[in-house]
Amino acid sequence: VGKGPVRTGVTAILPRGRAGAAIPCAAGTYALNGNGEMTGTIWIEESGELQTPITITNTHSCGVTRDATIRWLVADGIGTGQDWGLPVAAETYDGDLNDINGFHVTVEHTLRALDGARPGPVELGSRGGGTGMICYDFKGGNGTASRLVEIAGRRYTLGVFLQANFGRREDLTVLGVPVGARLAGQKLRGRDQGSVIAIVATDAPLLAHQAKRLARRVPMGLARTGTVGNNSSGDIFLAFSTANEAAFRDRGKSPRAMECLPNEALDPLFAATAEAVEEAVIDAMLVNRTMVGRDGNRSAALPVEE
Amino acid sequence: VGKGPVRTGVTAILPRGRAGAAIPCAAGTYALNGNGEMTGTIWIEESGELQTPITITNTHSCGVTRDATIRWLVADGIGTGQDWGLPVAAETYDGDLNDINGFHVTVEHTLRALDGARPGPVELGSRGGGTGMICYDFKGGNGTASRLVEIAGRRYTLGVFLQANFGRREDLTVLGVPVGARLAGQKLRGRDQGSVIAIVATDAPLLAHQAKRLARRVPMGLARTGTVGNNSSGDIFLAFSTANEAAFRDRGKSPRAMECLPNEALDPLFAATAEAVEEAVIDAMLVNRTMVGRDGNRSAALPVEE
Amino acid sequence: VGKGPVRTGVTAILPRGRAGAAIPCAAGTYALNGNGEMTGTIWIEESGELQTPITITNTHSCGVTRDATIRWLVADGIGTGQDWGLPVAAETYDGDLNDINGFHVTVEHTLRALDGARPGPVELGSRGGGTGMICYDFKGGNGTASRLVEIAGRRYTLGVFLQANFGRREDLTVLGVPVGARLAGQKLRGRDQGSVIAIVATDAPLLAHQAKRLARRVPMGLARTGTVGNNSSGDIFLAFSTANEAAFRDRGKSPRAMECLPNEALDPLFAATAEAVEEAVIDAMLVNRTMVGRDGNRSAALPVEE
Amino acid sequence: VGKGPVRTGVTAILPRGRAGAAIPCAAGTYALNGNGEMTGTIWIEESGELQTPITITNTHSCGVTRDATIRWLVADGIGTGQDWGLPVAAETYDGDLNDINGFHVTVEHTLRALDGARPGPVELGSRGGGTGMICYDFKGGNGTASRLVEIAGRRYTLGVFLQANFGRREDLTVLGVPVGARLAGQKLRGRDQGSVIAIVATDAPLLAHQAKRLARRVPMGLARTGTVGNNSSGDIFLAFSTANEAAFRDRGKSPRAMECLPNEALDPLFAATAEAVEEAVIDAMLVNRTMVGRDGNRSAALPVEE
Repeated sequence: VGKGPVRTGVTAILPRGRAGAAIPCAAGTYALNGNGEMTGTIWIEESGELQTPITITNTHSCGVTRDATIRWLVADGIGTGQDWGLPVAAETYDGDLNDINGFHVTVEHTLRALDGARPGPVELGSRGGGTGMICYDFKGGNGTASRLVEIAGRRYTLGVFLQANFGRREDLTVLGVPVGARLAGQKLRGRDQGSVIAIVATDAPLLAHQAKRLARRVPMGLARTGTVGNNSSGDIFLAFSTANEAAFRDRGKSPRAMECLPNEALDPLFAATAEAVEEAVIDAMLVNRTMVGRDGNRSAALPVEE
Repeated sequence: VGKGPVRTGVTAILPRGRAGAAIPCAAGTYALNGNGEMTGTIWIEESGELQTPITITNTHSCGVTRDATIRWLVADGIGTGQDWGLPVAAETYDGDLNDINGFHVTVEHTLRALDGARPGPVELGSRGGGTGMICYDFKGGNGTASRLVEIAGRRYTLGVFLQANFGRREDLTVLGVPVGARLAGQKLRGRDQGSVIAIVATDAPLLAHQAKRLARRVPMGLARTGTVGNNSSGDIFLAFSTANEAAFRDRGKSPRAMECLPNEALDPLFAATAEAVEEAVIDAMLVNRTMVGRDGNRSAALPVEE
Repeated sequence: VGKGPVRTGVTAILPRGRAGAAIPCAAGTYALNGNGEMTGTIWIEESGELQTPITITNTHSCGVTRDATIRWLVADGIGTGQDWGLPVAAETYDGDLNDINGFHVTVEHTLRALDGARPGPVELGSRGGGTGMICYDFKGGNGTASRLVEIAGRRYTLGVFLQANFGRREDLTVLGVPVGARLAGQKLRGRDQGSVIAIVATDAPLLAHQAKRLARRVPMGLARTGTVGNNSSGDIFLAFSTANEAAFRDRGKSPRAMECLPNEALDPLFAATAEAVEEAVIDAMLVNRTMVGRDGNRSAALPVEE
Repeated sequence: VGKGPVRTGVTAILPRGRAGAAIPCAAGTYALNGNGEMTGTIWIEESGELQTPITITNTHSCGVTRDATIRWLVADGIGTGQDWGLPVAAETYDGDLNDINGFHVTVEHTLRALDGARPGPVELGSRGGGTGMICYDFKGGNGTASRLVEIAGRRYTLGVFLQANFGRREDLTVLGVPVGARLAGQKLRGRDQGSVIAIVATDAPLLAHQAKRLARRVPMGLARTGTVGNNSSGDIFLAFSTANEAAFRDRGKSPRAMECLPNEALDPLFAATAEAVEEAVIDAMLVNRTMVGRDGNRSAALPVEE
C-alpha cells in the first residue's frame, strides 16, 4: 500500500523523431465527452500542428503547467515560428486522493518534468500526473501500449499513452469478460467521476486530418474495457505523427515537401489504436498497488489473481 | 436462401410523438467515419432540428429519395415553416448483391415508403434500404433494439434503428467473444466494404446538443461487436428526441417553452444507446437468411447454431 | 427583360490541374449559416479530399444532380479508388421565379452540364443553377472573380465561383457604401430568403485543413456586401487546391509525396478569398438583366447608373 | 502619452441575470482563426453551458488566470454541480508593449479582478487584459457596444465586449471607408500580430446551438473594420444567454423548464452582433491614447481628427 500524502505530479510528453524533438508535427484531436480540459486544441484544429510538448496533471493545475511550458520554451527559443506559445496542457481529476484544492503543482514541477522528458517509455502507474488516478474504481494511473504495423512493406510504430481515471466498477470488461460486476470490495468513488486523456503517437506519415481520424478511434478501444463515456468524464484525445520532421521545421514561405499515407492505407493504424488503447487501460490498473491518500481515502488495486 | 434479382428498397422513418408526427424535433448527428452520405446534416447542425422524415437506401440513390421526400412534404404542406425542405437521406453500399449502377430506386418507391411509415417497429432484416446489406461478411440488414430507462422517477424509451452493412468477418465479436475469427465459410466481400447508418430515437426531453451526445455514443455500441470503423465505411449517426412537440410546432417569433433533462441525468441514456446499438447489430444478422444476388453473388447468413 | 418560363439548369464545376481533371484534390468546407444543402461534405471532412465534380442547382433537385453525377462517374470509371461515389451537389432556392415544386431538373440536364464542364470561366449571370437567383432583391445569379497572389516568389491563382441568391435589399453595400437602403423600386422578395454557395479554387499547394481555412474566409468577403448571414440562408462554402495532382491520383498504399505551403504563408490567399468573394457578388448582379418568371414574378436588375 | 512600465492586468466578466450571477448559462463558441487560447471551450461545446466567470489576459498568463478562477470558485462553492471547475480563460498577445516573458500576472491579480466583476460596463481602453493591446497598429484595448432588439413585441439587449489586438494598419476600414491605407505615421508592429477575443452577451432566451450561431456572426462585424482574420491571429468568440437562470441553477435530474426563441426569430440578434462588434472595435481605438511600453516601444493612438 502506497503512503500519503499523495501529491499530483506532472507528466510531460515531447514528440521525438529521428532528429530529436519532432515539434511542430501533424496532429489532430477528438473529445468523446468533453468534461475536461486540454489547452491548445483550438490552434491544433486551425494549424494542423502540435507545436509544443504536452503536459498532463490534475484538473485544478493544468493552467500552471500550460504557462510553465511557455517559460520552458522561451528559455529554449519557442521554436514555433511565433513569438508566443500555445501549449497543450491536459488534466484529470484526482480530488479523491489528492488535496486538489491545495493547488500544490508548481512551475518548478513542470520545468523539471519537461527537462526529464526523454525518448522511450513514460513512467507507468501512479507517477507524474497519473499519481492520484482511479480507473473503474480500482487504482489507476499512467498506462501505455504500442503496436507495430506493416503497410505496403513498411513498418510503422504506434504508441498510446493514457492517464486513466475513468469508469464505474460495474462496467469494467477485460478481454470481453464483464468482470467488474463480479469484483466486490471497497469502492472509493462508487459513481462515475474522473476522465481519461489519451495521446496517440506514430511515426507513420499522416496529415492533420488523418491524425484526427486516429483520435476518433480511441473510444473504440475504451469501449472494449466497458465504458460508454459518462457525463462527468473528460475524455479528450490527441494523435500526432512524428514524420516529416524537416518539413515542419522549415518555417519559410515556400512550399515544403511532405509525405503521407493515402486514406486507404490507414485501417491497420485504426486497429492498432483501438488495441493499444484497450491494453493501456488494463495496463494502467495492473501496474498499480492500493493507495491511501487524502483523509485516509483508499483506492484498491485491481485484484489480479481474482 | 433468398431469391434474386435483389433490388434495394427504401426505408422511411418518421419521428412520432404523442400527437402524431413529431417533426420538427431536436436532433444531432455524428460521423465515426464519414465515407458515406447523410443529407440534411448541415441544417441539423445549424438549427438543432430534424424537420423531415428520414429515408435510407443504397449509395447511388439517396439523391432520389432526398428530392422525393420534398415532393412528399410539399403535397402535405412542408410543415417546416419554410418554403423548402432539406430532408435527411442516408445510404449504404449494396453493390455486392444489388445492381447499384442500374439506379433502380425511384421517386415512387420513396413516396410509398413514406406513406407506409407508421408508429411501431421498422421492418427487420433484408427489407427496404436494408435489402442488400452485408455485416461482418454475413447477411446483414435492418436491426433494431430498444431500452427502457428510468431517470428521477420517470420512464423514457430509447430505440435504435440500424442499416447494418459493415465489418470484416474476422473482427466479429458477440457478447465479448471474438467469434468472427473462428467462423469459417464463404465470404462475399473478404475485405472491409460498406457502412452503417444508425438512428437513435428517444422520448426523453433532450436539446440539440444533447442529442448529438447520444449520436457520439453509437460507436461505443458498435465497438462491442468488433469493428474499429474502417476507412471504407460510412458510419453516420443521427439522434433525435420526440419531446417538446408543441414547442417545435409553434413557429411564431415569441419565446417557446421547452423542457430538457440536465446533462447530469444523461448517463442512463448513454448506456442505453450503446447497449441498443450492440443488440441491433447482432439482431440485423440473426433475422437474416442467406441471400443470392447480382451475378450469383451469395452472402451467407450467420450460422447461429455454431 | 428575360422571358419566362424560367427553368433552373445545372452548373457543373470540375477541378482542373495541369494534367486534366484534378480529382481527387485537397478540399475543405464551412457553413456560415447552414439552411441549405451541400452533399458530400461529410466525406470531405473525413478524407480531406474532393473526389467528384461539383453540381449546383435548385433546392428541390440537388438529389437528382447528386445521383446523376455518380452515373456520369460510373460511365467514366469512378476514379475515386472506391466502387461508389459521394458527389458534391449544392443548391439554392429559386422558387420565386422558377416552378421549384415542378421538379423539372433531370438526369439528362446534369449529364449535359458535366459533359460541358470545361477549363476556363463558368457561365455568368442567370445560367445553369444560377438561373432563378435573386441577390439583395435584385436579379442575381452566377458570379466569379479571381486574384493573382505572389508568395515567396511564386505566383498562384485563386478563383471564386458563387451562386448568389441571398440578402435583403436594405443591407446591400457596394465598396463600403450602403446603397441598398437608398435604392427604391420593386422588391420581389421583400424579406430574407435564399442562400449563397461559394466555391474557392486555387493552384496554391494546400492541405485539407488549409483549404478549410480559405472556406472560413468566404464570410469576410460576403460581409463587405452587407449581409450578416440570415437564418433562412444556406451559406455553404467549399475550397479546394488543384496542386499535388500526381499524389492524389496514386491510390497505392505507400506514402506519397506532396507539397504544401506553411500556414505562415497563407495571408495573401485569405485576402484574395475575401476580395474575390466581394467582387463576385457584385459581379453576379452587374451581369444580369431584369427577369420575369413564374406567375409573372419580376426580379429587377441592379440599376447600375444610379 | 501613457507611461511605462506597462503591465498586463486581468479582465473578468461574470454573466449577470436578474437574480445575480447567471452561471451556468447557455453558451457557444467559434474561432475564425484559432491562433490563440480560450480554455473551457471543450466543455462548453459538450455541455452547452458556460459555468464559470471569464477571464482575459495576455497569451503567456491565461493559465494562471484559469487556475485562479477555480480557486475563486472553490472559496465560494464551485456552483457547477461538479467537484471541479473548467473555467474560460482567454488571451491575446501584448509582447510588443509588455514584458510578456516576465510572467507578471498573478493569482492575486485574478482574484481581485473576479472580486471586482460587477454588473454594468467593463472598463474600456487600456485596462485589465486590454492594457497592452494594439489594433490596426494603433493603440487598442477593451471595446464595448450594445444594441436593443425588439422581437415579437419583446425587448432584448445584446452587448459585445472585445479585447481588440488585431489587424494591419493598411486594412483599417471605418464606416466603409478604407482609412488605414491613408493614415501614415509610425507603426509599432508593421505586420500582422495579435488577436481578438469577443464575448457576446444577451438576455434573449437562446439555447446552446443558438448562442454558437451568434458567435459565428462576430466575423461579420470584424470584416467591416477591414480584417480577413490573418494566420497569426487568435480570433476566438464566445456568446452566452443569461435567460433561464432558474433552470440552469437546478441541478436535479428531473426535466427542467426553459424557454427559447425559435430560429426564425434570430435575425435581429445576428444583425445586432455584427453591428456591436464593428462599433466595439472602433470604440477600442477611440478611447485610447498613445502608449509607450517595454523598451520604449510606442503604440500611437488613432488620430481621430484626421
